[in-house]
Amino acid sequence: MSLQKPVAEKNVSGKVKKVFDDIKKTRKISKIPNFWRTIANDPKTLERTWKSLKQVMSKGSLDPLTKELIYVAVSMTNSCEYCIRSHTAAAKKRGMTDNMLNELIAVVGMANETNRLVESYQVEVDKFLK
Amino acid sequence: MSLQKPVAEKNVSGKVKKVFDDIKKTRKISKIPNFWRTIANDPKTLERTWKSLKQVMSKGSLDPLTKELIYVAVSMTNSCEYCIRSHTAAAKKRGMTDNMLNELIAVVGMANETNRLVESYQVEVDKFLK
Amino acid sequence: MSLQKPVAEKNVSGKVKKVFDDIKKTRKISKIPNFWRTIANDPKTLERTWKSLKQVMSKGSLDPLTKELIYVAVSMTNSCEYCIRSHTAAAKKRGMTDNMLNELIAVVGMANETNRLVESYQVEVDKFLK
Amino acid sequence: MSLQKPVAEKNVSGKVKKVFDDIKKTRKISKIPNFWRTIANDPKTLERTWKSLKQVMSKGSLDPLTKELIYVAVSMTNSCEYCIRSHTAAAKKRGMTDNMLNELIAVVGMANETNRLVESYQVEVDKFLK
Amino acid sequence: MSLQKPVAEKNVSGKVKKVFDDIKKTRKISKIPNFWRTIANDPKTLERTWKSLKQVMSKGSLDPLTKELIYVAVSMTNSCEYCIRSHTAAAKKRGMTDNMLNELIAVVGMANETNRLVESYQVEVDKFLK
Amino acid sequence: MSLQKPVAEKNVSGKVKKVFDDIKKTRKISKIPNFWRTIANDPKTLERTWKSLKQVMSKGSLDPLTKELIYVAVSMTNSCEYCIRSHTAAAKKRGMTDNMLNELIAVVGMANETNRLVESYQVEVDKFLK
Repeated sequence: MSLQKPVAEKNVSGKVKKVFDDIKKTRKISKIPNFWRTIANDPKTLERTWKSLKQVMSKGSLDPLTKELIYVAVSMTNSCEYCIRSHTAAAKKRGMTDNMLNELIAVVGMANETNRLVESYQVEVDKFLK
Repeated sequence: MSLQKPVAEKNVSGKVKKVFDDIKKTRKISKIPNFWRTIANDPKTLERTWKSLKQVMSKGSLDPLTKELIYVAVSMTNSCEYCIRSHTAAAKKRGMTDNMLNELIAVVGMANETNRLVESYQVEVDKFLK
Repeated sequence: MSLQKPVAEKNVSGKVKKVFDDIKKTRKISKIPNFWRTIANDPKTLERTWKSLKQVMSKGSLDPLTKELIYVAVSMTNSCEYCIRSHTAAAKKRGMTDNMLNELIAVVGMANETNRLVESYQVEVDKFLK
Repeated sequence: MSLQKPVAEKNVSGKVKKVFDDIKKTRKISKIPNFWRTIANDPKTLERTWKSLKQVMSKGSLDPLTKELIYVAVSMTNSCEYCIRSHTAAAKKRGMTDNMLNELIAVVGMANETNRLVESYQVEVDKFLK
Repeated sequence: MSLQKPVAEKNVSGKVKKVFDDIKKTRKISKIPNFWRTIANDPKTLERTWKSLKQVMSKGSLDPLTKELIYVAVSMTNSCEYCIRSHTAAAKKRGMTDNMLNELIAVVGMANETNRLVESYQVEVDKFLK
Repeated sequence: MSLQKPVAEKNVSGKVKKVFDDIKKTRKISKIPNFWRTIANDPKTLERTWKSLKQVMSKGSLDPLTKELIYVAVSMTNSCEYCIRSHTAAAKKRGMTDNMLNELIAVVGMANETNRLVESYQVEVDKFLK
């Protein structure tokens, strides 16, 4: 069980209801996932997080699929199961194929290896990189 | 200073020289960066890492720029300065603009925040995500 | 199953029994939690860890509740489920309310985000901070 | 050097100037630190981060000093030098003494140790904690 | 369930079958573990990872048991349950006793504690260590 | 500069002096490194950490060199420069050669890669491993 019980959709009103409605409309989903229902125990955090996420993940110089791939890569590096599963699903909705997922994971694996090789040897930053 | 002294290019031969030559040709660079010169103290690791990286980062279902963005995102999450600087430079070569970099960082920041919110509340994975 | 089987309370004697008795007395609990029963497979680690924890978590310039909040914040950042659950319970015993828990989590989330923004941009330490 | 050059205070206008003015007023400081000047390269991230941080760190069920201590604890666990230095300074302003800092660090150290002991032994969560 | 379904041994052929056969022969096992069956969804990653692992873990200046202990220590620090369990099993096969496991965990715990003490205080590297 | 100024050896007395003398005798060194001089600002942490470290790192079922290698591997995974440098130096004193260091780093790199592959694919633990 999560530390705070997820809020039931039928019980919400005011600020929380407004955010839930916007999530459903924006994401084109009919049920609010556990993440949003759980942080709804803290309406200010719910509202702030949703507004921030909506802004950050919307189309800009990077397209939404690329942003989701980056999100998944961070979640994999942090070993966050919920985040990996929910953002993998979101990336698939935006066109990520199985091959793309495999390649994403291969890059995440290599980056984690070379990151540690660099830190292990304490490699100095090249002058032309500073 | 790094734990092992970077190998000087003029002193290499055999397997190490072959890898160095391939790095310069593939990356279209004239000088071998410190990372490769440092791990060249262990020729087997140099050869294995270069071959792996070359395979993983080449064009596939994901294009090389997207792969570099993912690489940078992992390096930022791991706080690896050398890796951030070298792969940011590589991403710029492949077309990453300042705006794209800013958006990449915004996603990395948000993903790290929501990853911790999920873990802090111990949010349960939704049935439809399993 | 844990890597080593938790030691049953009825089977302990000597150094381990002494530590178990002190844990029950100090914490005012009647059953030894799995953590202590598991590390009891290594009596020296059990004794050292209990003595250290008792010293570190006792009232000093910081009160025990504040220390528990800090403990929980670290455990959340490390995504350690057992640690989050046991120290959240301990913090509640010392007076942490649901609102305080929500605010604690909000700070943990923000700190993890800005930590990564700082590292991603490689922000230089201001002279007045050194 | 940071990845993007910090924006000079004299050059800002519009949204960025408004945020800078609010930071100076709220924090009672006369110069904008590098963190805010660097993320000002991305005005949306600057505005979003400042608004979020202001909301999260303001007095609630937890007092501002306790929130700063939690912030520092997370930053120490993530080894973020800039964050440790700036939030240690902020905590001192709010009353953190040297003894409190030492005790904070002792808790951070112990929590990181026991977090790993738990994960290393794969300790199972006690039934009464779920 | 894993993100990609583990490949069934009876269904493999070509490159994947060759790697599976080599794993069984080298490790003296009759069934392929989930890790290899899962990454077999990406034959190039399967082949690259197996060849790399085989090279890295073979006897060199360090004996295979010491290498497994190091592998386990990293996996514990990263809280990777699968990795802890599979490499603990591998280390036991190579002679790791329960006492050795306990001592390994004690070192992992202490190292994680002192690592954080160092970062928390921002201890400067001694001149004789550079 | 570290958060608290390292204590000068000539200024210590009582509990701190006793620990410093034991460090010099046990480690056969003539000068106290910055780590111990810095945590000496908190004599209880100094004494507890030294006693714990001395116990944990002493010869047991694992020999002191193997323990140092494990310590270094953890420090590399945590990217703690001070810890990497000081424990690499300690390992060299106990017989670690350059080849051993290279192999250690290769294992650390591979373990970090496969740890992430496991978490990225969310590989399920094999029944025979539980």
